[in-house]
Amino acid sequence: MNFKDELKQRKIYFEKTMNQYIPQNANYQKTLFEAMKYSLDAGGKRLRPLLMMESCSLVGGNVEDVIPFANAIEMIHTYSLIHDDLPCMDDDDLRRGKPTNHKVFGEGIAVLAGDGLLNLAFEVMIKASLSDKKNSYTYLQAMNEIAKASGVYGMIGGQAVDLECENKLVDKDTLEFIHMNKTSAMIIASMRSGAIIGKASDEQLDRITNYARCIGLSFQIVDDILDIVGDQSKLGKNIKSDLENNKSTYPSLYGLDKSKQMAQDLIKQAKESISLFGEKAQFLIDLADYIISREC
Amino acid sequence: MNFKDELKQRKIYFEKTMNQYIPQNANYQKTLFEAMKYSLDAGGKRLRPLLMMESCSLVGGNVEDVIPFANAIEMIHTYSLIHDDLPCMDDDDLRRGKPTNHKVFGEGIAVLAGDGLLNLAFEVMIKASLSDKKNSYTYLQAMNEIAKASGVYGMIGGQAVDLECENKLVDKDTLEFIHMNKTSAMIIASMRSGAIIGKASDEQLDRITNYARCIGLSFQIVDDILDIVGDQSKLGKNIKSDLENNKSTYPSLYGLDKSKQMAQDLIKQAKESISLFGEKAQFLIDLADYIISREC
Repeated sequence: MNFKDELKQRKIYFEKTMNQYIPQNANYQKTLFEAMKYSLDAGGKRLRPLLMMESCSLVGGNVEDVIPFANAIEMIHTYSLIHDDLPCMDDDDLRRGKPTNHKVFGEGIAVLAGDGLLNLAFEVMIKASLSDKKNSYTYLQAMNEIAKASGVYGMIGGQAVDLECENKLVDKDTLEFIHMNKTSAMIIASMRSGAIIGKASDEQLDRITNYARCIGLSFQIVDDILDIVGDQSKLGKNIKSDLENNKSTYPSLYGLDKSKQMAQDLIKQAKESISLFGEKAQFLIDLADYIISREC
Repeated sequence: MNFKDELKQRKIYFEKTMNQYIPQNANYQKTLFEAMKYSLDAGGKRLRPLLMMESCSLVGGNVEDVIPFANAIEMIHTYSLIHDDLPCMDDDDLRRGKPTNHKVFGEGIAVLAGDGLLNLAFEVMIKASLSDKKNSYTYLQAMNEIAKASGVYGMIGGQAVDLECENKLVDKDTLEFIHMNKTSAMIIASMRSGAIIGKASDEQLDRITNYARCIGLSFQIVDDILDIVGDQSKLGKNIKSDLENNKSTYPSLYGLDKSKQMAQDLIKQAKESISLFGEKAQFLIDLADYIISREC
């Protein structure tokens, strides 16, 4: 099977598990549940869950053990997009080719749908940790990785600085802080938590962490590049929105060619990091190549 | 010491513990941390932490063991107020006599400060659970109580229905759903998690749960009453805001006298629930009386 088919198949596998975690039985809060489901079902690459599943199996773990955590991380990612799209944040009308959550359900419900998804992510992880008493401490460690990465020293911290830097030119360190925290932190946490649940050795965990750090930053640089040169129909969002918002990006700070080179260097580093896994790392190697080849 | 002094002393004790949990060392996300601290420091009764601490010690537990969880529940309560005050929700300018979070920091940062506090609550609970490996499963159970209560089948569910019912007359069942979930669920979770950490027996946990349910609902009824008859300077918020928002309340559905009677009956039930603890329950008995006597 070629890589794109493999990716598609894994995505379908993951998406089939999602339904059991979405709240269904509303007494009165039907609209809230619809709003949460709307954004969860809106598609996307499911990159974080797939990375978590892969890093678990790469170190010899059982993919089924990470399914609740993979769903939790997708919920956290989805909530961050809902809040990020709000008029008081990025003010986006379109996400993955569909109207954004607040455009459909109103701002108040969109705020609560986001809150609900963040909270539900922890509920799901806690329930999974309680249900396997023998391994509950390991699950707690995995939960800790995710909680730190999604928090104020991670994703939310990155979003806050990103918001404050709108309409300002920022320096390279600030841009790196924003991307490391807003995007990479959760990609790293996906892979670390998967590896922890799979009972990785310290060295395996270090290598996987470095791989994740490299592809996370590369992914963001490629995103910045696509925002300038991409095709709107392929991205399903308004391109040049970063430019219109006067956001500093890698291309605006480093130039387009240098940005492409940086993304490529990071992918090379990523692949080297996981060489110790030999042939078993093929999926992650292909994935790294795939990130750089997205229209870039 | 009389009850009010005791309450004040415990509040001071709790507030002294707060500083260690508030993020301090910002690289770039200084405004975010200021916004979180602003609302955490804004005062309030600290009812949920005090209930958690008391229920833990009532069953023979060590109050110090619940301090991280008591801080977590106050963070969750605070985040819910920040989001609830947003223009797209209740649109309040004043909270506890001070400008609301979004009035000071802007809506975007207020959304993120709320997100940050919810996430931080889980970080704090997870860290505490990891640091005491022997009892980590018990802490996970306590975390589960809090996560369920603050989620879409608890507080967030109640808020969503409350929001949808604005400018609508709702029936008694819907009003009870809103209050049970928006307010009581977290009061119950405070006491249950405290009791669980204190290693309560099943019967003790049942009795404490019933006490919490009764004072939670009574507290909300009294709040509704105060919204009509209260004194703005004492409450530190605009009174009659519920009336202006056309919200259904206990007085509007049951009348003022019947509402007062309901609140009193619940307080009586609450006190009976904890009679098995004898003299040790005096603080909770006084607290129940205090709730009903708040200008009501």
